[in-house]
Amino acid sequence: MDVGFIGLGNMGLPMARNILKAGHRLRVYNRTKSRAEPLQQEGATLVNSPAEASTGDVVITMLANDQAVEETVFGDEGVLTALKKGAAHISMSTITVALSERLKEVHAEAGQTYISAPVFGRPDAAAAAKLFVVAAGEKKAVERFQPLFDAVGQRTFFLSENAPEANLVKLSGNFLIAAMIECLGETAALMRKYDVDPRRFLEIMTETLFAAPVYRTYGALIADEKYEPAGFKLELGLKDIRSILAAAEAKSVPMPVGSVIRDHFLSAIARGGAHLDWSALAKVSAEDAGLKS
Amino acid sequence: MDVGFIGLGNMGLPMARNILKAGHRLRVYNRTKSRAEPLQQEGATLVNSPAEASTGDVVITMLANDQAVEETVFGDEGVLTALKKGAAHISMSTITVALSERLKEVHAEAGQTYISAPVFGRPDAAAAAKLFVVAAGEKKAVERFQPLFDAVGQRTFFLSENAPEANLVKLSGNFLIAAMIECLGETAALMRKYDVDPRRFLEIMTETLFAAPVYRTYGALIADEKYEPAGFKLELGLKDIRSILAAAEAKSVPMPVGSVIRDHFLSAIARGGAHLDWSALAKVSAEDAGLKS
Amino acid sequence: MDVGFIGLGNMGLPMARNILKAGHRLRVYNRTKSRAEPLQQEGATLVNSPAEASTGDVVITMLANDQAVEETVFGDEGVLTALKKGAAHISMSTITVALSERLKEVHAEAGQTYISAPVFGRPDAAAAAKLFVVAAGEKKAVERFQPLFDAVGQRTFFLSENAPEANLVKLSGNFLIAAMIECLGETAALMRKYDVDPRRFLEIMTETLFAAPVYRTYGALIADEKYEPAGFKLELGLKDIRSILAAAEAKSVPMPVGSVIRDHFLSAIARGGAHLDWSALAKVSAEDAGLKS
Amino acid sequence: MDVGFIGLGNMGLPMARNILKAGHRLRVYNRTKSRAEPLQQEGATLVNSPAEASTGDVVITMLANDQAVEETVFGDEGVLTALKKGAAHISMSTITVALSERLKEVHAEAGQTYISAPVFGRPDAAAAAKLFVVAAGEKKAVERFQPLFDAVGQRTFFLSENAPEANLVKLSGNFLIAAMIECLGETAALMRKYDVDPRRFLEIMTETLFAAPVYRTYGALIADEKYEPAGFKLELGLKDIRSILAAAEAKSVPMPVGSVIRDHFLSAIARGGAHLDWSALAKVSAEDAGLKS
Repeated sequence: MDVGFIGLGNMGLPMARNILKAGHRLRVYNRTKSRAEPLQQEGATLVNSPAEASTGDVVITMLANDQAVEETVFGDEGVLTALKKGAAHISMSTITVALSERLKEVHAEAGQTYISAPVFGRPDAAAAAKLFVVAAGEKKAVERFQPLFDAVGQRTFFLSENAPEANLVKLSGNFLIAAMIECLGETAALMRKYDVDPRRFLEIMTETLFAAPVYRTYGALIADEKYEPAGFKLELGLKDIRSILAAAEAKSVPMPVGSVIRDHFLSAIARGGAHLDWSALAKVSAEDAGLKS
Repeated sequence: MDVGFIGLGNMGLPMARNILKAGHRLRVYNRTKSRAEPLQQEGATLVNSPAEASTGDVVITMLANDQAVEETVFGDEGVLTALKKGAAHISMSTITVALSERLKEVHAEAGQTYISAPVFGRPDAAAAAKLFVVAAGEKKAVERFQPLFDAVGQRTFFLSENAPEANLVKLSGNFLIAAMIECLGETAALMRKYDVDPRRFLEIMTETLFAAPVYRTYGALIADEKYEPAGFKLELGLKDIRSILAAAEAKSVPMPVGSVIRDHFLSAIARGGAHLDWSALAKVSAEDAGLKS
Repeated sequence: MDVGFIGLGNMGLPMARNILKAGHRLRVYNRTKSRAEPLQQEGATLVNSPAEASTGDVVITMLANDQAVEETVFGDEGVLTALKKGAAHISMSTITVALSERLKEVHAEAGQTYISAPVFGRPDAAAAAKLFVVAAGEKKAVERFQPLFDAVGQRTFFLSENAPEANLVKLSGNFLIAAMIECLGETAALMRKYDVDPRRFLEIMTETLFAAPVYRTYGALIADEKYEPAGFKLELGLKDIRSILAAAEAKSVPMPVGSVIRDHFLSAIARGGAHLDWSALAKVSAEDAGLKS
Repeated sequence: MDVGFIGLGNMGLPMARNILKAGHRLRVYNRTKSRAEPLQQEGATLVNSPAEASTGDVVITMLANDQAVEETVFGDEGVLTALKKGAAHISMSTITVALSERLKEVHAEAGQTYISAPVFGRPDAAAAAKLFVVAAGEKKAVERFQPLFDAVGQRTFFLSENAPEANLVKLSGNFLIAAMIECLGETAALMRKYDVDPRRFLEIMTETLFAAPVYRTYGALIADEKYEPAGFKLELGLKDIRSILAAAEAKSVPMPVGSVIRDHFLSAIARGGAHLDWSALAKVSAEDAGLKS
């Protein structure tokens, strides 16, 4: 396939590489050009604008936030003007439901295909092509691009024909992770105040009821208070919680645990933790219990 | 071993039966005698008081709450007066840390052994001898009674020599389950308001990041809104949250997600749901989002 | 003075009338023209655009929300292009701190004066010229327009030279009112469950520690469950809470009571209460306690 | 009247003195005897037990918490055994609704009169005989002891014949004060982060909508961050919030703002603030916003 790829961050770079490895023609664009050079050596074509990346069958965006996607799609030399009728934009970033709804609308008006296909997994899973892809949009289109999803992920879940639903699921998944971090943080603080080793508690939990990878990963980070380097920055965690709360507000759904998490993210940032891994939410619980960290 | 067993509820009855099956001599006591009769036919001896159940090597209590344990241990014809020096009381109920500390103290004064060994698992796991046992107390004593733990559970975690720590771990585990229920409930309400099937969302979550049995069990109950019959009653869930918040308060640890859950349990009960399964916490999120249930 | 007035809603109409009565020349603009007609009979000039309202010494905006102010100021035939150098825009609506910062900037660039002067008080206070005005902006300019503030209010508080601070104070004041409503609602529910008349409780409070007009006003509405007609609509209350939480988030300040209130506003709206007075926040507390309302 | 008075703390001592000044015969008891000596010089009789203080027409208890009242009433040489049939126990302390219900019951069984008459006001108001008394119990009895209430307070509110309701009202009033402190603290932190002087904000609020003494008093303490000496200790504030939450739980009433306050009290205590004035709740908001204090 003739694929454009925009956004070569911690997640985007390994994803683009895996698509290239799978044998597709790849045009890549990144605002900071130097990030793209390794891929050039591996066979990708570097282009100078989102528009130039959008002249093939499909263009994938994997960017940091709504604003970056908006500039890339709606800006001069953006995706929207360059994409051919019938060609597709696959948005794989974690963006808001509201922006996804807007993309759905404008691409439809332009006779283009829009697929929302956000992914679950941290950078190591991206490198290993072990991401989970949640895809929504016209079913035939999703099937047509299955080879691309197979190139980056271990499994694809087709959700529905309504693209923004994939963003709702992605944000809700991130909410569940953040909530798990918050709750592990609250119990870890409690254990410490009782002189019980939080490692032991988490070990028991993850070998019994909560034998899920995500509990093991975050449980260990919290028990060891190892918040650097950040696999996923706390300030990005706040962005995602803000996005899910906005999606919930749009339908008048209160999410009180979401509100607690949002407040703790703000506290963590106010105390200087924006750059830490989002598991550092647990620091707030520790400090609120009077523990030094 | 010569074992006494007090408390033949949904959990206690299958546990006692499994101990009997494992070949131990069993004396059973239950306030409502008829509950004990099936065990008599299987070879157990029915006795008329906690004291009579406490004349052997060890007596196990598996009761509904602190008050029942207090009456059983401290009452006339209670465990405390009857238990021989060197014999053991194994408390397997979910009781407060404060009561466990008191039991530790009084048994020590009386020259008796006290082991705290609460279990994780619902009645079906109890029947299948698949419980997880978290044991704390004098290590040698815990080892000595390992055959009893093996009779009821699939695995025993020895925690520490300080018995009440096992209660802290048990209550914290229940807090994590309640928090998971609350968060699944919040996302399920959100999905419904967006006309996304919560089943599909939960399916994706439990086949990817949250591939833990407890997510599958409760995810299904919530997605299907199947809150009866209760595996674990909502009012007992409130009791456990109250207990963990009390343990946290004793060490000045705020647990804001715990507070949210407590408030939602109260709401669920105020609206007539005390007898439902504690997964009905999700009803509160649904109703707060204006959904009919 | 030669005054333009834009926005003749429940608050704007009586304010404009009081300015007219005080002897100023008044040009009025309202999107729905019929709202302006009574003022025409009383001597005001009706104009056809925000621009036409902005040709004098000063133009006042008193609009429903940020969007209305943005359209009025930045739109074609908007305030910004029409206002003369040295002339002033006085924004009296409850808008966000972020929009106020933007207005400060664009008016400064255009050589125009910008004053932020939001008001406290409900429609009856506006009619009686008994509003409280909180003004911020260049001090000399505020002094120059004091006659206008005197025409609508009983007292003006000059805050600082930094106009957006007045919006911060206004939104924080509304937060305190909403929090008071929430807390009175929680206690009223409690009283009802104990068969104590909430009126009696509120009477005692407002004749002793809380002898403030705002407690009396809202206390009576809540005790009588009289949520219609709305003096200030619940959906506008949510808008203000959202604005204060956004201002707080911009500086990484958690406001957990603000979060509770936001969640309850959402619940009230989800259950069909958007059009009620914002004191209907108390209905959520009542329903969460299982009370019929 | 022949009056016994038990409990000569910061509140009890000036109250007892005012009763003495009003011309009543006074028998006083305090666990720490030296506290009672000044009153002896002013004409009171010192006695050696609660029982000896309870031989007249009426005995008043004004003690720190439930436990002190329980020991005083139910202990050996306690009030209960000594009080004559027809004589009265007036409980003026801030105790739980549950204990008040128990006192109501036991005094009725003993043929004694029980009046619950907690007070609002800090020690300076007690000294100036300016307390507010909220009285509940048999109406004739309350009328009979009106001279005592007049001796200590500026006004008495008769609530109902059901004594524990006065405790519910007292605790709810303290909840409203704590909530006000919390909200003023949240806004003060916000103001500081925007470089707005919280004093100015609070000045505007208390001269307009919130012109109540309690807002002025606590607003000033918070704006000045003056948390010592304590007029009412933070750890006592936690006790009262715990009591109101317990009363609410007994009737299945969630009070989410109460939960937020409870968690913040715990945080304040965890960080070493138990001895500060309860207005130091605002320190938690400041620290959670990253402000040094």
